[in-house]
Amino acid sequence: MPSLNLRGRGSVCEIWNRSPPSLDLGLCLFKAVHPSWGPTGLVPRSFACCLEKPASCRTMPQLGLLHGRAWAALLGQLRQPARALCVRTVHSHSQVGEAVLTSQLKPHQEKSNVIIKTPKGTRDFSPQQMVVREKILNIIVSCFKRHGAKGLDTPAFELKEMLTKKYGEDSGFIYDLQDQGGELLSLRYDLTVPFARYMAMNKLKTMKRYHVGKVWRRESPAVVQGRFREFCQCDFDIAGHFDPMIPDAECLKIICEILSALQLGDFLIKVNHRRILVGMFAVCGVPESKFHAICSSIDKLDKMSWKDVRHEMVAKKGLAPEVADRIGDYVQCHGGVSLVEQMFQDPRLSLNKQALEGLGDLKLLFEYLTLFGIKEKVYFDLSLARGLEYYTGVIYEAVLRPTPAQAEEEALNVGTVAAGGRYDGLVSMFNPNGHKVPCVGLSIGVERLFSIVEQRMKTFGEMIQTTETQVFVATPQKNFLQERLKLIAELWDAGIKAELMYKNNPKLLKQLHYCENLGIPLVVIIGEQELKEGVIKLRSVATREEVAIKRENLVAEIQKRLYDS
Amino acid sequence: MPSLNLRGRGSVCEIWNRSPPSLDLGLCLFKAVHPSWGPTGLVPRSFACCLEKPASCRTMPQLGLLHGRAWAALLGQLRQPARALCVRTVHSHSQVGEAVLTSQLKPHQEKSNVIIKTPKGTRDFSPQQMVVREKILNIIVSCFKRHGAKGLDTPAFELKEMLTKKYGEDSGFIYDLQDQGGELLSLRYDLTVPFARYMAMNKLKTMKRYHVGKVWRRESPAVVQGRFREFCQCDFDIAGHFDPMIPDAECLKIICEILSALQLGDFLIKVNHRRILVGMFAVCGVPESKFHAICSSIDKLDKMSWKDVRHEMVAKKGLAPEVADRIGDYVQCHGGVSLVEQMFQDPRLSLNKQALEGLGDLKLLFEYLTLFGIKEKVYFDLSLARGLEYYTGVIYEAVLRPTPAQAEEEALNVGTVAAGGRYDGLVSMFNPNGHKVPCVGLSIGVERLFSIVEQRMKTFGEMIQTTETQVFVATPQKNFLQERLKLIAELWDAGIKAELMYKNNPKLLKQLHYCENLGIPLVVIIGEQELKEGVIKLRSVATREEVAIKRENLVAEIQKRLYDS
Repeated sequence: MPSLNLRGRGSVCEIWNRSPPSLDLGLCLFKAVHPSWGPTGLVPRSFACCLEKPASCRTMPQLGLLHGRAWAALLGQLRQPARALCVRTVHSHSQVGEAVLTSQLKPHQEKSNVIIKTPKGTRDFSPQQMVVREKILNIIVSCFKRHGAKGLDTPAFELKEMLTKKYGEDSGFIYDLQDQGGELLSLRYDLTVPFARYMAMNKLKTMKRYHVGKVWRRESPAVVQGRFREFCQCDFDIAGHFDPMIPDAECLKIICEILSALQLGDFLIKVNHRRILVGMFAVCGVPESKFHAICSSIDKLDKMSWKDVRHEMVAKKGLAPEVADRIGDYVQCHGGVSLVEQMFQDPRLSLNKQALEGLGDLKLLFEYLTLFGIKEKVYFDLSLARGLEYYTGVIYEAVLRPTPAQAEEEALNVGTVAAGGRYDGLVSMFNPNGHKVPCVGLSIGVERLFSIVEQRMKTFGEMIQTTETQVFVATPQKNFLQERLKLIAELWDAGIKAELMYKNNPKLLKQLHYCENLGIPLVVIIGEQELKEGVIKLRSVATREEVAIKRENLVAEIQKRLYDS
Repeated sequence: MPSLNLRGRGSVCEIWNRSPPSLDLGLCLFKAVHPSWGPTGLVPRSFACCLEKPASCRTMPQLGLLHGRAWAALLGQLRQPARALCVRTVHSHSQVGEAVLTSQLKPHQEKSNVIIKTPKGTRDFSPQQMVVREKILNIIVSCFKRHGAKGLDTPAFELKEMLTKKYGEDSGFIYDLQDQGGELLSLRYDLTVPFARYMAMNKLKTMKRYHVGKVWRRESPAVVQGRFREFCQCDFDIAGHFDPMIPDAECLKIICEILSALQLGDFLIKVNHRRILVGMFAVCGVPESKFHAICSSIDKLDKMSWKDVRHEMVAKKGLAPEVADRIGDYVQCHGGVSLVEQMFQDPRLSLNKQALEGLGDLKLLFEYLTLFGIKEKVYFDLSLARGLEYYTGVIYEAVLRPTPAQAEEEALNVGTVAAGGRYDGLVSMFNPNGHKVPCVGLSIGVERLFSIVEQRMKTFGEMIQTTETQVFVATPQKNFLQERLKLIAELWDAGIKAELMYKNNPKLLKQLHYCENLGIPLVVIIGEQELKEGVIKLRSVATREEVAIKRENLVAEIQKRLYDS
C-alpha cells in the first residue's frame, strides 16, 4: 500500500486548529480515551492533555486475563470511568513520546562508560506491550484475510537503487548499510516500494496482498521529536486492472471495519483525488512549476491555520496573493457527497478536464460507499494532499473523532490512524518496458493505535496477563520434585499450558501467590496423602475451593473446566 | 536463547560420515521426506539427493485448504508415496539453496541496466511460502506459550558496542549501518545478545521469554553457499537462579514437543557439557592455550571424518599425536545415560573436578528427562562442542533421524534443526557490577524446517491455498454490481470471508472458475430471478449443488455450513 507517511500529518496530539466546530473534528487525547474523563471545559488551544493516576486511585477494575477474554472486554473495562484523575498539560504529544522513549532507555552508566540502551528512536516491547500489540495486529490481519488478501514478506533491506527516486524529499531519511563489500543496501522505508518491486520482479499483473512488518526512517529527533525510527506497518493493497473505484471503495471499507473492531471511538475518513488537486491548482492560476511546493503547504493544513499556510505560500513560495485566496476558497471546503455535486457545478473547476475526471471518480466512489453502508464515515476534503509523490488518484486518511457532545469544544487532532490511496505508476517505475500495474491500498498506523491503547492502560496502572498459563503444578511437601515433573509432563503432552517452580522444595504459599499474581486459574496439588490415595487436588485460584480428583481423570477434568470457563 | 549458530554445523544436506551405523544417525534428504521414496539402495557418500517430479505425475493428491484443516492433514498428504519420482543427485545441498536463491532473484535486466532483485542472500516469501511459515511458527509459538513464556521484541539494530566481544570470530559477519551521523549501529546477529542486553538494561533477575524475529549475518556466499543472510530465529530462554537442571530439562522437553508436533520424522538430541569438554581437554593433555582451537576442530566432527579432524589438530594446530588420539577415544563416544555412568568410572576423567561437575549435571539431567518421558530421544555425545563462546554448561543440538529400516544405510546429516545451551555469564557482560543472571535456552532452526516442508511441497508440485476466502459473491447477469456490493458488505459485516470480481459485468463461468482455482467452498449467486423472489442461490463448489435460500437467512445458513464442514 502507499507509504503511510502518517507522520507527515502530525503526531497523536498535535494541534488541530483549522476545522470549524461544526465538523466535529479534533479532540484531545484524554477525550479520545474516555468521553467522561477529565474536565469538561475548554481545552486550551495548542495544548494536549495526558493523564496521570493519583496515588488515591490504585484500585482500578482488574483488566483480567487478556488472552482468555475478548478484546471487547478489555476495552470495555478500559472505558470504565476512572474514579479520580489528574490532568496534566504538556506542550505537545512529543513529550508523551519522549516519556515513552526515556522509560525505554533507562540508561545505565557503567564504570566502563558504556550506556546500556536501545538505539535512538527505537524501543524494546515488553511482554505487556507485546500482548496489546498481538491483539491489535490480530484484529487487523483477520480483517485483511476476510477480504481475501494473501500474505507476503520481503527482506528488511533492499538494494539501495531500488529505493532511489521513490520518496522525493524523504529519501534523506533512508537508513543505508555500511559498504562492507558487495552490494549497496538500504533498510526499507515502507512496505509499498518493496511490494511494487516484487510485482515487477515477478512480472505479476494482479495481486491482493497484506504485509505486516517493520520499516525504518532516520528522522531527526531534533525536528520530529518523540517519533520512532523503527515502527510497524500493516499494509493491504490491490494490484491489477479492474473497473474503476471498486477496489478503492473496498480499501475504505477495510479501514472502517478495522477502526470499528478496535473500538477506539468514532472516526472519519477524509478523501480527495490527486487530479482534483491538479485541476484546482490549474484553475486557481498556480504555475505548474510550483505544484509540488504548494501541494506540500496545503498538506500542512491539519497542523497549521489557513492564515499561516497562506503566509507560507505567498511569502516563502512566491505565490501571488490572489491565487492563494482562490486556493483558500477550495481547501477550506469539506463535506459529503453533496460537496462533490457542488464542485461539479463550480464555474472554474467544471471547465478543467482533470478536475472533472477526479470528481467523476469520487461520485462513483460515494455510490459504492453507500452500498457498503459507510457513506457517513467519509468526507470529501479538498485540503487533503498526502505527501508522497507516487499517488495518482483517490487519496484518503482516517482520523479518530470526538463524540457529538465534544463537537462544540475546541480540541486537538489525535493524528492519522490509517491512510492510503491509488498509485498507478509505481510498479512500472521498476520495469518501464513491462506491463503497467495499477494499485490501490492502505496502511494502518498501528503504532498510533498502540499508543492510544497503551496510554489508556497506563492511566489505569493495571498489569495485563503476559502468559497464558492455565494450570500450576504445586506441592505442599519437600522432595516432591519428581512427582511434579511427571505430572507437568502429562499436562504439557495433553496440550495444557502449565508451569511449576524450578525449585526442589518451594514453599506452598509462594506457589499459590505466584498463581494469584500471574492470574493462573487452576492449581493441581500433589503431596504424600494424594500420592497414597491415587488422587490429585485441584484448586480454583479465584474461589480457593479444592477438590480431590482421581489421577487418571485429571486431564479430562482440567480440560472440562477450562472449556466451561 | 543462545545464538543458534546452526549454520556452524553444516547445511541441511551436508555429509554425515563419522557415525557408526549402529547409532541410526544420518539420512539423506529424500529419506527424511518420505521413507518409501526413491531407490532403497545405498546413497553414495558425499552426495545428497533431491527430487523432481516428472511430467507424468502431475496428478498428486490435492493438498487442500491448508488453513481450514490441520497441519497433520497437510503432512499426512505430503507423506503419501509419490506415484513416480525422479532422483537427481547434486553435489551438495548448497545447490538446492542456490536454486531457491536463483528462483527468488529472477533478475530482470532493464535497458537502464538496473537488475530487479532482492539483495544477495535474501529472499521474498511468496503467499504460498507464507502459509507454510505461518503454520510452522504457530506450532512453535504455541509450544512456547504452553510452557509459560512471555513475548518480547527488540529493535532490528543495536548500538554497535552492544554486539562487540559477544561473538568471537563470527563478529566479522555482523552487518553495520552506515555512519549517517549519530550513533554507530549494527543489525542484530541473533536474539540472545539483545535478550541479555534487555535483562541487564532493565535490571531483571528472572524471565521466561520467547522471541520470534529476523536476524542478519553477512556470511560470504563464496564460503558458505546457499545459506541466507537474513533468516528467522525462534528463541525460548529461562533466566534466573533456580535449582540445577530443571530449566535445562524443560528446554529439551520443548524441543521434543515442537519436533514431534511438526511430524517431520524421528529425531534425536545430542547433549554435552562445556565443563566435560574442558575436563576432557585437560586430562588428554591439551595445553590451555589451544582449548579454543581444538574445540573448533572437534565441532567439525559432524561434517568431517575423525581422520581429517585428527589431521587438522596435529598438522595445522600443532597438537601432539598421542594427545589427539586420547581425544579421539572420547569424542567418538555417544550413548545414553549409561555412557554418563561409564565416564564417571573413566580413570582419567574421574580425577578432573570440572569433568565430574559436568557429569553430575548430565546425570541429574537424564533423571529429569526420564520423568519427562524423553530419555530415549537424548544422547550424550562427547564430540558436541557448539561454536559460540558464551556457553558455560549443558549444550545440545537436535537432528532429524532416519527410520530404523534406514539405519543400515550410509546416509547424510540433514543438519541441526534446534540447538541451545546454558550461558550463565552473558548478562553480566553488559553489567559487570550488576547481578549475575544465569540463563538457559534454545533456538528452533525454523528456516531448515521450512526448507524441508517446502521441498516436500515442491516434490508434489501442488499449490496450497493462500487465501482463506469462504464465500464468493457472483452473478450470472449484467448490471448487478450494486446488488453484489450490498450483499458482500453484509457478509463482511457478519465476519464471513468473502470476495467478488472487481468488474462491472464479469462472466459467470469466470467467477466459478476462480472459486475452483482458489478452493473457495461456497458461492452465493444473485440475479434478476433471485432479486424478484427475495432469495439467493447458494452453491457448493465441490458438489455443484445449488439451493435457494431466503435473503434474510443467508448469513445464518452460510455460518451453519462453514461450521459443519
